[in-house]
Amino acid sequence: METRPKRFNELWLTEEQSPDMKLSLRVSEVLLNVKSPYQDILLVETGEYGRMMILDGAIQITERDEFCYSEMMAHVALSSHPDPRRVLIVGGGDGGVLREVLRHKSVEKATLIDIDEEVINASKRFLPTISAALEDPRADVKPMDAMVYIKAAKEEFDVAIVDSTDPVEFAAGLFESPFYRDIHNALKKDGMVVAQTESPFTDRNVVRDAFREMSSVFPVVRMYWGAMPTYPSGMWTYTVGSKNADPSAPLRPAPEGTRYYTSDIHRASFVLPPFVIDLLK
Amino acid sequence: METRPKRFNELWLTEEQSPDMKLSLRVSEVLLNVKSPYQDILLVETGEYGRMMILDGAIQITERDEFCYSEMMAHVALSSHPDPRRVLIVGGGDGGVLREVLRHKSVEKATLIDIDEEVINASKRFLPTISAALEDPRADVKPMDAMVYIKAAKEEFDVAIVDSTDPVEFAAGLFESPFYRDIHNALKKDGMVVAQTESPFTDRNVVRDAFREMSSVFPVVRMYWGAMPTYPSGMWTYTVGSKNADPSAPLRPAPEGTRYYTSDIHRASFVLPPFVIDLLK
Repeated sequence: METRPKRFNELWLTEEQSPDMKLSLRVSEVLLNVKSPYQDILLVETGEYGRMMILDGAIQITERDEFCYSEMMAHVALSSHPDPRRVLIVGGGDGGVLREVLRHKSVEKATLIDIDEEVINASKRFLPTISAALEDPRADVKPMDAMVYIKAAKEEFDVAIVDSTDPVEFAAGLFESPFYRDIHNALKKDGMVVAQTESPFTDRNVVRDAFREMSSVFPVVRMYWGAMPTYPSGMWTYTVGSKNADPSAPLRPAPEGTRYYTSDIHRASFVLPPFVIDLLK
Repeated sequence: METRPKRFNELWLTEEQSPDMKLSLRVSEVLLNVKSPYQDILLVETGEYGRMMILDGAIQITERDEFCYSEMMAHVALSSHPDPRRVLIVGGGDGGVLREVLRHKSVEKATLIDIDEEVINASKRFLPTISAALEDPRADVKPMDAMVYIKAAKEEFDVAIVDSTDPVEFAAGLFESPFYRDIHNALKKDGMVVAQTESPFTDRNVVRDAFREMSSVFPVVRMYWGAMPTYPSGMWTYTVGSKNADPSAPLRPAPEGTRYYTSDIHRASFVLPPFVIDLLK
């Protein structure tokens, strides 16, 4: 009997990080591959970063490096706000930022508004270490359009965290001044907003424009940065707008259990290299 | 006459960053592809990062992001050493770190020892913004085995910078204590050594072992980090050993022309996230 030579398959997830750059990760299992009304949702198990959620082809979150992002999104504003009790999270349906927000004992309620209920459900089903906080009694999870929700909110929140996808399609408005104006109105008098504002290498215009748009609304606007391996270039910026307090000065120690954030990292993350400062001029 | 449909070719350089992860960059031109006695040397023009040198399949340096690495390799030790006049660079045949070293006016002579003369020549030919310093009158460039050179050097240098490739094959010894012992002997009394020590995500053992090996030789050993987009994970560590002075405290302002390094970045880069501190325990 003739035997065919054995063949080996390899499954790789390849993200086009820019038209000229791709990151590929070896996939051991495809867990979910569905189309929601808003985006393609793909969940895979990778050798390098554990489980990973990809939305419309862009890597959103991985089990192994999300702490870098989730902690920096949550703790900078929450540690420099004088008394954060009510927190709004725009997007972030995976639950990673929410988990970090709820480490702060002062937080009475965290409202998470993600347009896509299927992202929330996928995270609950496949990313338990990231999504557990979605079931917390202090979490109020609403699957709806955050832009609609925020227009109706007045002076309700101490901190708003904009955990959006890249600024394209339904998320594009989340990087523009009308949205920041609505956020401003939804915040109480000492309110702060934080947004993820992409890479100073691969998204120079986003970094610049988000800073400018937020500066047209908030009196205090500062940029900080951190490492984030699975995002393009691995260097990620965050922009924080404040009605009053200085967001670069932590007022209390880091909550327990952080792996990236400390009060010293907080202060250090506001030190920008000259090439980033030049982007903001 | 029958016409064939037009076909499009795409040329991509793909680096295997780990067995489970690959970074790919679109290539517009292959400039050089040779085998030296030590390694494969590949030089390509990429859309994302400009010209790029790849040694044995590992991306070494690109025109667009090398400043992050070259500046952090050079300026931390040179700014915290009390009076750096004589500098040794091990490896670094591209000339990027040398260019940064020579920004310091106190430096009288910088000796660069790269085992592979063909790397030096390739950089001179194709990477002018990186290699220009190789022709500087204060530069003493020797194509030879640094391990041999250093064994013979006694109390000659103020600062040694180990700009090595990954710790495999002929470069493996550059991460071990016998080499650090030779470096210690080659340094004057206030001497400092800096080494690139890889990523805390993809090279956890290297980070840990390099720190331990250097600590067995130098009384003061500190780790610092920075962003480096084209290296695996984009988060890069550097380990500095000192006979005396505190390397985390800059003694003078940054030299002119830096795009990543400032005195504030110097101090901030020594603030390690808890997950990196845990690696060093």
